[in-house]
Formats: sequence, structure tokens, C-alpha cells
Amino acid sequence: MSNTFGRILRLTTFGESHGKALGGILDGMPAGIAVDTDYIKKQLERRRPGQSALTTSRHEKEEVEFLSGIFEGKTLGTPIAFLIRNENVRTSDYEHIKASYRPSHADFTYEKKYGIRDWRGGGRASARETVSRIVGGALAKHLIPEVRIRAHVHSVHRIRSEKSIDALDWDFVERNPVRTADPDMADAFENLIKQAKKEGDTVGGTILCSIDGVPPGWGEPVFDKLEARLAAAMMSIPAAKGFEIGSGFEGTEMKGSRHNDVFLPDGSTRTNFSGGVQGGISNGMPVYFKVAFKPVATLMKPQQSIDKHGNQVIIPPKGRHDPCVLPRAVPIVEAMATLVLADFYLLQKIQKQKV
Amino acid sequence: MSNTFGRILRLTTFGESHGKALGGILDGMPAGIAVDTDYIKKQLERRRPGQSALTTSRHEKEEVEFLSGIFEGKTLGTPIAFLIRNENVRTSDYEHIKASYRPSHADFTYEKKYGIRDWRGGGRASARETVSRIVGGALAKHLIPEVRIRAHVHSVHRIRSEKSIDALDWDFVERNPVRTADPDMADAFENLIKQAKKEGDTVGGTILCSIDGVPPGWGEPVFDKLEARLAAAMMSIPAAKGFEIGSGFEGTEMKGSRHNDVFLPDGSTRTNFSGGVQGGISNGMPVYFKVAFKPVATLMKPQQSIDKHGNQVIIPPKGRHDPCVLPRAVPIVEAMATLVLADFYLLQKIQKQKV
Amino acid sequence: MSNTFGRILRLTTFGESHGKALGGILDGMPAGIAVDTDYIKKQLERRRPGQSALTTSRHEKEEVEFLSGIFEGKTLGTPIAFLIRNENVRTSDYEHIKASYRPSHADFTYEKKYGIRDWRGGGRASARETVSRIVGGALAKHLIPEVRIRAHVHSVHRIRSEKSIDALDWDFVERNPVRTADPDMADAFENLIKQAKKEGDTVGGTILCSIDGVPPGWGEPVFDKLEARLAAAMMSIPAAKGFEIGSGFEGTEMKGSRHNDVFLPDGSTRTNFSGGVQGGISNGMPVYFKVAFKPVATLMKPQQSIDKHGNQVIIPPKGRHDPCVLPRAVPIVEAMATLVLADFYLLQKIQKQKV
Amino acid sequence: MSNTFGRILRLTTFGESHGKALGGILDGMPAGIAVDTDYIKKQLERRRPGQSALTTSRHEKEEVEFLSGIFEGKTLGTPIAFLIRNENVRTSDYEHIKASYRPSHADFTYEKKYGIRDWRGGGRASARETVSRIVGGALAKHLIPEVRIRAHVHSVHRIRSEKSIDALDWDFVERNPVRTADPDMADAFENLIKQAKKEGDTVGGTILCSIDGVPPGWGEPVFDKLEARLAAAMMSIPAAKGFEIGSGFEGTEMKGSRHNDVFLPDGSTRTNFSGGVQGGISNGMPVYFKVAFKPVATLMKPQQSIDKHGNQVIIPPKGRHDPCVLPRAVPIVEAMATLVLADFYLLQKIQKQKV
Repeated sequence: MSNTFGRILRLTTFGESHGKALGGILDGMPAGIAVDTDYIKKQLERRRPGQSALTTSRHEKEEVEFLSGIFEGKTLGTPIAFLIRNENVRTSDYEHIKASYRPSHADFTYEKKYGIRDWRGGGRASARETVSRIVGGALAKHLIPEVRIRAHVHSVHRIRSEKSIDALDWDFVERNPVRTADPDMADAFENLIKQAKKEGDTVGGTILCSIDGVPPGWGEPVFDKLEARLAAAMMSIPAAKGFEIGSGFEGTEMKGSRHNDVFLPDGSTRTNFSGGVQGGISNGMPVYFKVAFKPVATLMKPQQSIDKHGNQVIIPPKGRHDPCVLPRAVPIVEAMATLVLADFYLLQKIQKQKV
Repeated sequence: MSNTFGRILRLTTFGESHGKALGGILDGMPAGIAVDTDYIKKQLERRRPGQSALTTSRHEKEEVEFLSGIFEGKTLGTPIAFLIRNENVRTSDYEHIKASYRPSHADFTYEKKYGIRDWRGGGRASARETVSRIVGGALAKHLIPEVRIRAHVHSVHRIRSEKSIDALDWDFVERNPVRTADPDMADAFENLIKQAKKEGDTVGGTILCSIDGVPPGWGEPVFDKLEARLAAAMMSIPAAKGFEIGSGFEGTEMKGSRHNDVFLPDGSTRTNFSGGVQGGISNGMPVYFKVAFKPVATLMKPQQSIDKHGNQVIIPPKGRHDPCVLPRAVPIVEAMATLVLADFYLLQKIQKQKV
Repeated sequence: MSNTFGRILRLTTFGESHGKALGGILDGMPAGIAVDTDYIKKQLERRRPGQSALTTSRHEKEEVEFLSGIFEGKTLGTPIAFLIRNENVRTSDYEHIKASYRPSHADFTYEKKYGIRDWRGGGRASARETVSRIVGGALAKHLIPEVRIRAHVHSVHRIRSEKSIDALDWDFVERNPVRTADPDMADAFENLIKQAKKEGDTVGGTILCSIDGVPPGWGEPVFDKLEARLAAAMMSIPAAKGFEIGSGFEGTEMKGSRHNDVFLPDGSTRTNFSGGVQGGISNGMPVYFKVAFKPVATLMKPQQSIDKHGNQVIIPPKGRHDPCVLPRAVPIVEAMATLVLADFYLLQKIQKQKV
Repeated sequence: MSNTFGRILRLTTFGESHGKALGGILDGMPAGIAVDTDYIKKQLERRRPGQSALTTSRHEKEEVEFLSGIFEGKTLGTPIAFLIRNENVRTSDYEHIKASYRPSHADFTYEKKYGIRDWRGGGRASARETVSRIVGGALAKHLIPEVRIRAHVHSVHRIRSEKSIDALDWDFVERNPVRTADPDMADAFENLIKQAKKEGDTVGGTILCSIDGVPPGWGEPVFDKLEARLAAAMMSIPAAKGFEIGSGFEGTEMKGSRHNDVFLPDGSTRTNFSGGVQGGISNGMPVYFKVAFKPVATLMKPQQSIDKHGNQVIIPPKGRHDPCVLPRAVPIVEAMATLVLADFYLLQKIQKQKV
């Protein structure tokens, strides 16, 4: 539960923000797969803080150490354990919230749930936890090399890209600090984030993820619909507040005669309002979805709050934080989507083989 | 997996639309709980087709039979099995899709996944499957009587209620065929649906669900966040295309300084953009979320499509179908939310008791 | 949990002995498999009470109804639900234990666990529950037709078969009421059971199960070793008190130099003290194990006991019960072994296919 | 699956014998429990090789590092990750089995299952894997301090203790290298093992585990019976070949009138052939069971075998190995029993609390 994701391919993660280490165990990887450690490092690098002026100046060391499950460069079929040590830790940045609750953070809820919390850097609730998801997703990618999973920043605050998915320039994503695939919006997005930073404020936005190469038949009826698993994956990312697949919320404004995707003789569909899934199962068309991320809760200006006794306190601006999660959330969205799809890939093996 | 939902309280469902029966097994219910069968029947009645001019004229018999787990009116702690026999079945309505794929239905994807499908009435992909969720949810409700879980139709097609949640009239929901809690919108919503029906077309919309009485501490960090479980639950409902909690997609347009929910001395918050969850765990404020439902895929006018050989065919308007899922989806949204919350309630027992 | 068995192929069962029905849901069966209902009926018939003078005179109707998951004779890939109605129910036979605890039965423990129990016929603790396992196992057998799973009565009370597995006559099993594969022991076993019955007493014994045709590679390292899953399966059968695989307890008396199974050039082994498993994974040699069943707890003579207030009571001999579970436990052992192996077969598909 | 044990309290382990490290993640521990690291170290010390003349001379460093889930000495409710680095690794001892299969080891089966294996020190199949179970069990013990779980060596080769459980001297266990609680047998057991060692041979035996303080109500009906979970736990330990609870295999030789445990007015039973469980649920009497361990497969004399091409080879005596697993298996049996019981304890919290 809770700290495990997946059914056949299961990622279990651990770690508090300022604890000794974060990491996880990926169980269920088939044997004999050559592991591309450069690819994994590259994904970690994309999530790492301190990449640009848009992200926090914290320089977290994101060095992953694999402890098991890989032998002479190949998977053994046994669990792959990995860890990332915490090093550039400034616990003093958090002393002031030891007994106080930051607004819209998890300080209050963890305290109420557990009666104890690691207040240093947000503890388990810190987005630093997602570093383990990057490693898990990058390993999972080895199972489905032919599936292209690409996310980008679709909107920031009140500005959004108006380009259709086909018109996006995916190669551009890693060439701009915001990680948008719409070159026309990159500057506007960047300026918005910089402006918020200057104000000591934060902004939110949406990430769009597009997935090509999923064959028909992945997903399950009823509770484990492909879209249900994707939604769970995305809504488990810190700061996510919404998920929509295909036409999503806008699709509710169409009539059925417009919304239905007409089949062409080859089994593809003329439109793709379904977003590549029908009845919870992939239909071979591209899968695409959006995820809404709220503005970061940590502000660089004083905020009113309470301590654990209900006394009013002022939370001073402290620590090193991103004014916007979007650029670094792009690889996290991709990693979680990869975990979902690789799991369905393995499940579908069972279905497809002849008895 | 797939046909099982929940971790401690687990609902496993079965049944094809025109098979012998649908039903399920609810495992994990604690013992000694008096079962209110009238309540369960009332929930089934709310989902039943043929309730009003807005829904299909099919008169499905929704009589539930409990087979186990209840003794002298009380739960035994053993699995509760139940079934609903299929009776008013007109399989001939579906002969024409035996070898053809209806647009935006699951005919094509089931065929690709399994190589076989029960074409009668949509088989396992039919929304008739949700009848088992109603029973499961109604049973689960017995565990959390103090939690109020109420959904209503928030928008139909391009019209939406502008009322805040506090201004809704929940008693009104069962007094209008659309099931909206906004009396000002009931007529407009109803007319939209009737108009679509007259045109042989269909409409979609959104359902808002509001939950009071959840104490702080329900939910789990990381993968099983309360919002992640709710999202999975909602996106597993047929025709759901989007989910948002709290401020959702609109919240991405706010700055952090506006979006943060300031704590009051009693631990409540001045605003509730978080939607009652912070870091995946309830904070004691009302939980609320919206679900987007696409327009029904079955139209009452001819549609172009293909058969299994790729030949173009016309799907004629046949069968008895709802022009809009929303009125009947309201109790389904409530049932799934109840299953999620009751499960977290049981999990939190483990945490809360002293060792 | 509790009422679900399996990981990919999952059987969830329900039902109290004198409730409306027993049954289950088998989820995870691949699609397109032709279901042999005669085979299933034959397995049910083997477990049915009232087959011979050795078993209870209760004539339970063991008619299984399939409710879902099968269409035109083939599996759909969706959950297969089934039920067996209870008919020949004489609840009055149990009125006397409504408030009393039978020795070595589950009356006391269910009461302590749940605070409530269905006292009629033993409720959920009744061995009648195994009827659902027979159906689940018979369905699972369709996945592994080439694997031969055969059990027989190896010992009754203090008498045991001295034949090696190779010398057993498996065709003889269904030709003698005890279900032994050792024709030399059939009469002695039968007489022991009849004698116990005459005395109003009961006897226990052991069942040996032999499995041919398991290819190398089934099973998992560490916690889900093939022998661990088999042990769990067998120890979940009512009245089971012991399990041993291969050389088992006797093997502890050998030295390593004698016990080690020497490999022959074709990968088979000269001896098979391992019982077909090494390190939790099948090695291609026959798998064999024994299960110990205690003597039936229900006697046909008065027994001293207590009621729920701690008062001493006499439990009178009542109802219709087997003097020995072994003959009817043979198909149950086979069914549970089949569920274990079919599950590993499906899991191994994931491992074996090329990525 | 496979590498995860437990339902509420879940231990996931990782690590190959000569890999970088072994370890695990314990998820599901409630928050606020003070962790006794000395106790954990003491348990590790009991399993450590090189303790006495009876065990291997390998001096494995068993230093555990906790990476998460513990803060200021208390559990956080988040996953507890831990690792034990491998240090005293002599991989050269295993070069000779790189392409050969040792008899009755897992070399052959891993190769067949995965097509790849870490041949160094047995890889994942090595009993070194149990070090993680010791840590998991020692943590789990914190949940059930009042339950006494004690194992000892009951028999070695053909010699067994004849003492009843009540007559055992549990304090004696840690005072003799064999870890028997029967002072009368310690010398004989020790001599047997030394003699086997001198011969380059190995011996097996049985371990008895006795558990006091389990209240009535732990366990689950049907598939997760207390004895089924214990059996799975024990049979997952390397070299285990048999499990019996209560009267076990010997109990099959009794008649029901002798075997039934008569209740006394206080709800205890006069005899305890049931071994503390009835119908899968604890009855408040002591739980006891035995586990059979085969003689160690690694001999200190040459053995005939094959290589991966089917050629006959001689496996030379190499490496540092125990002539008998029993002394070091005692704490492993206790650890696995503890994991089972702590899990049931947490599950029973759900049942017991008032709604």
C-alpha cells in the first residue's frame, strides 16, 4: 500500500527529505535486461534542483547507488534496490516550523495522523521523495523502449499553449528552462515564473503528457482502467490537484455526435477525444492527459499561521524553494506514466500468450 | 487487481450486462454491524434506469440478494456476497454490433485485448456493472455514518451552476430528475438533456461531490494519497474523463499567496482551496472534488463505423439508452467515494490505537 | 486477504455452511479458454458428501451455477463468478451449540474474534467452504492441462502405505472409497474408518500429492517459494496440521552426502529428496508433498465442554458427519495445488517472454 | 509478491549474497514507537556467522544502517529502510560454480527461471538473505512486546529432545552453541554437528517454536489462517522442508476422542493438541510448531555434478559453510513468526475497535 506502486512491477519507496537517504526497491523486473545507467542519470539530472534560474538554488546531490538486482550490467529478476544519500542538508532552515504548521503544507496533517513528524525539510511529504520515482520510472522504461512518453509544460498561471499536440516541438523541451514544447510560449512562461519569484510568490500550471506507441489492449476493465491508474499515479505527485484524459473537462461541453471518435478502416480513429482509451483499455491511438499543479505553498514572504497550540505565528520566508514546480515536474509525470504503462505491458503478456 | 477495489475493505465485482447476474463480494467488513437493507435498496433505486423521462426506458430489475456474511441482520466479519439477476434483457438489440465496433465504446478494445467479447449489451464494459458498486458503497457507508457524502450535477454541456458549495440545497437533489442541488439550474439542465434526447444526441457534464465529517488524518503519504485514491475511484466509473480536487484546474491560475489556506486558531482554514487534503491526508475541512463525464457514446441516430474486418458499416440507432449519464452517475460517485473513505477509516484504526 | 487466494489468478470465496449459498469469484483467467463443465462437475462430485459408507449421509446438492465470465463456452477474461446453493440444510442439528463451544472446533475462536458467529453448521468455519475451492481449482486446471496433479490417502491413523510414489496405482484411487492409490492398503484403511465410525469416534491421516509435468522455473525466490505457497495452500484446508515437501521431516535424519540430489547429464536428478524444488523454484523433477489431517473434531458420542458463560455442558452427538476427512480431502488437496501452480504458470509467462 | 511479506506490516527485502548490500523496507509500522536498536543488534548477532565452532568461520559484518522512518528514536509511520553492507566477500570461492550447478542448490533453478544468475555466493538464493528478516522481525517485535516467541533446536539428525515444552529451559538457549532449550541434549547435539563437520558432511534437524501471550482472535478464516501464514513464513526460510503445528503429523495417529482439546470453565483447554489455533484463529493457548530443516547442501568433500552444458564435473569443497543450519536458524524462525503475529495484531485492531 501507501509506499508501493504497481501490481506486477512494484516500486516501494522510502525516505524523508533530510533523513540519511531516499531510495526504493523495484520488484518484478524481468531478468536479462541490460541497464542503461546513463539514461537513469540523465533523468535524475532533469529532476535535480538548481538547474536554472527558475528552480531552487539548493544543489542536491542526486547520485544513485544500485545495491542489488543488477549483475554484470543486467537485471537478475531479483529486486533492484537503490538509494540516493542526502547531503546538502540545511536543517536549520526548518527549525522555525518545528512546532508550527505552514499553510497548505502537510505539517498539520502528518501531525494529526501520526502524532509525530520529521519537520526537517518536510520529511516524507517533501517533493524530494519523487527522486525515487525518477529512478523507478527510468528502470521501467527499459521494458517498453518502443513507447514514447513525453511531457511538457502546457500552461503557467493564466497563460497556456494553444498548439495542438501534433504541432508541439518535443526536441525543444530540454532547450528551455520551463520545459515547454511550445517555443512560442517559452519566454512568456519564463517571465511569469521569474516575476513570481521576484515577488516572493509562486505560480502553478498544467503539464500535458503525450504517449505514442501503446498497442491496443493495455489496461483493464472496471477498477484498473488505464485512465484510473494514470490518474492515481498523477494525483500522487506532490501539488497535483487535477487530472484529465483526452477531451477531459472540455469534452463535457461537446455533444456525443461530435465527441465520438469515428473508426477508420485500419482501426484508427478520425479524432481522438477518447485520449487513446476506451472502456479503460488502450485502442492504439496516442494517449494524452493533463495534470494540474497548484502554486507552490512555500512563499518567500511572511505568512500568517498557527503553532501546535493554536497560537498565531508568522512563518518567515526561509529555505531554498522553487517558485514553480512545473519544470521539474515534467520528468516526474513521465516517470509515473512509465511505471503505469510498463506494469500494464507485463500484465498483458499474461493475456496475450497462448495457453 | 482489475476487479477488486480497496485495501482493507475490498470490493470484488463480477458480471456482464446481459449475463445471468451481476454482483460482488465485499471482504473486510468488521463484524457486528446492523445492516440497513432499506438504505441499500434506496441507493439501488437511485441508480436504476427508468426513473424519469431523462433516463432510458429500460426497466432493469435491481433486486439484490445477499448470499453470505450477514446473520440475523448483522455482519459476521466474513465476506458479504450479493447478486442482482439480469432479467429485462433484450439481446436482440445488440445483434447488429456482434461483428461491428461502436464508436467510442469498448467493443474494439475488448476485442483487441481478449480476442473475444460478450457483445450483448456491452458485456463487462457496460455501465450496468456499476450496480455492484452501489451495493458495495451502501454497505461501506455503515462504517462511517458520521461522514456526509453528497454529490450533485454541477454542469450539463455548456451550462454550469455558479453557486458555492455552501449555497447548494442538498435536499433538492432527489426532488429533480437531473439531480442538481442548485434549484436555479434544474430546469435549464433538464431542458438541455431533453433537447439532446429529441435530437437523438447526448450530452455530458460534471458532478461535484462534497464530503463533510472526515476527521484529520485519513489518507496516506506518497502513492495512496487520499486524492490519488479518489481519482482512481472516479476515473474507474464509465465515461469519466477528468477529476479535480479542491481548486483543481482553476487553482493553477492563482498565485501561491492567494491559494494557500491560512490556518485559524482552531486548526480549520480560512479558505479551502486544498479541498480538505494536504500532503495526501485529510485536514478536517470539507473534501470536495469534481468529475467530468463525457457525452454518452450511444446515439439515437445512425453512425458510421467499421466491422471487425475493417469494412465500413452504419451503426443504426437501437436499444434503450440514457441521453446523459449524469443523473444516474450521482449515486455512483457517492458510492465510490464511500468505498475510498471507509477503507481509509479502517486503515487509520491501525494508526490510532495505542500499542 | 483472508478470503482471496492467489496473485495473478485470484480466487475469492464466500459463504457460510447453512447460509443461502457458497461460491466465489475467480479473477485473472486469461480469455478464450474453452470451459469443460463436465470436468468441473466431476471434481465437485468427488468432494460431495454421501458418496460412500465412509462419508456423512448428508446429501448436499453440489450444483454449481456460473454467473459471469464465460460466454458461448469460453472464458472472457473477466471474473468468473459461481455459486452453489445450500439446500439440504438441517439447522436444528445445531441449535444445541448456539451458546456452547464444541471442542477443537472454531466456535470459541470465531466468537472471540468477531463477537458474533453463525452457529448453524459451523458457519464460515465449516469444511463446506471448500466446495468453492474445488470449482476454482477445476477452472485453474484449464490453464495447465499438461501438469498432472494427483493425490491419494497415504496413511490412516497408525497404518501407512509403504509403496514408493512410482509404485502407486493412480487409476485405483477412484475405485476405492478411501481414495488410496495403494490397492494393498485399501481394505485396511477402510476398516479403520468403519471401526472408528462404529465407535462414534474419528480418525486422521495423511494425504500424499504427486505432481508431474512442472517445467523448471516455476516459483519465486524468498517469500513466495513454491513450497511456501503450497504450504500456505495446504495449511488453509480445514483440519490440516502439517505439511512436508520432498524428504520432509524424515529428510532431517539424513546426512547431506546422502540427501543431495545428484544431477544427471540431462539436468534431471538421480534421487529426488528435494521434491522437485530447489531454492523455491521447480527443477523439472516431480513435485511431491504430504499433508497431515487431524481426526475429525465432531464425534458421535457425548463430549464435555463449556457454554459462553463458562458453564460446563455436554455436547450431545448430533448431525451427520464424516468419521474421517481424508477421502473427501483428496480432491481439495488437488484443487489447492492446482491454484498454486496455475498462478505460478501465469507469473512465469512474464519472465519468459522476450522484451 | 515474491520479495514482500505481510499484509498490513509489509517487509520487502533485497540483496544478493555478494552484492553491495542486503536490506529491506518495512512499511506499515505505526508511528510513535521507540525503537530499541540494541535489541535489533542482539538479534543480528544471534544470526551472524562465526559465533562458535559449530558455524562457518566467515566473519560477516552485520552492521545495520537505518535510512528512514525513524526520527529522534521513534517510528514516524513512514517506511523504515535499512541496509547491511557486504564486506568480507571472497568471490573467488565461487568461481568454480560460475558454469556448474551444485547439487541441491538453487544454481540450476535460477538459471532455468531467469536465464541469468549471480553465481557469487549463491546470489539471491543465499541464506545470507535472511539477515533482512532478522531486522524486520526485530522491528515487528516492538508492536507485540507482550507476546513471547521462543525457538530452540528440538532435534539434530536422528536425535531429538524428549522434553515437553513446559519442561524446556529457555534461558539455556543462548548458553549453548546449538541453541537447544534442553540441557540434557546439548552435548549430544553438539557432538553430532562436530562429527559431521569433521567428516566434511552436514546434518539437518528440527526447530520447535513456542509462542505465549497471543490473545484469542488473531488469525483469519479460510486462506489466511494463522497456521497457513506461519507455514508460508517458515517454508520460505532456506532449507525448510516441513512444518507442523500442534500435534502435527503425530496427531494423525490419534483418535478424535483423544485429540480433541476439552475446554475448561475459563476458556482454556485441558490439552493443547490444536497448538493454539482452531479454525485458523488463535484460542489463547500457547501456539507451537516445528520446522524441518534439511542437511546443508554444501559439503566439504568433492561432489559429482554437471555444468551448464550437461558435462559431468566435480564440485570441489570450497568456501566457508555451516555444517548445520539449525543454531543460526533459531532467530530466523523467531523473526518470521514475529512478522506473522505482528501483522495479525494490526489486522485485529481493525476488527476489535468499536465503530
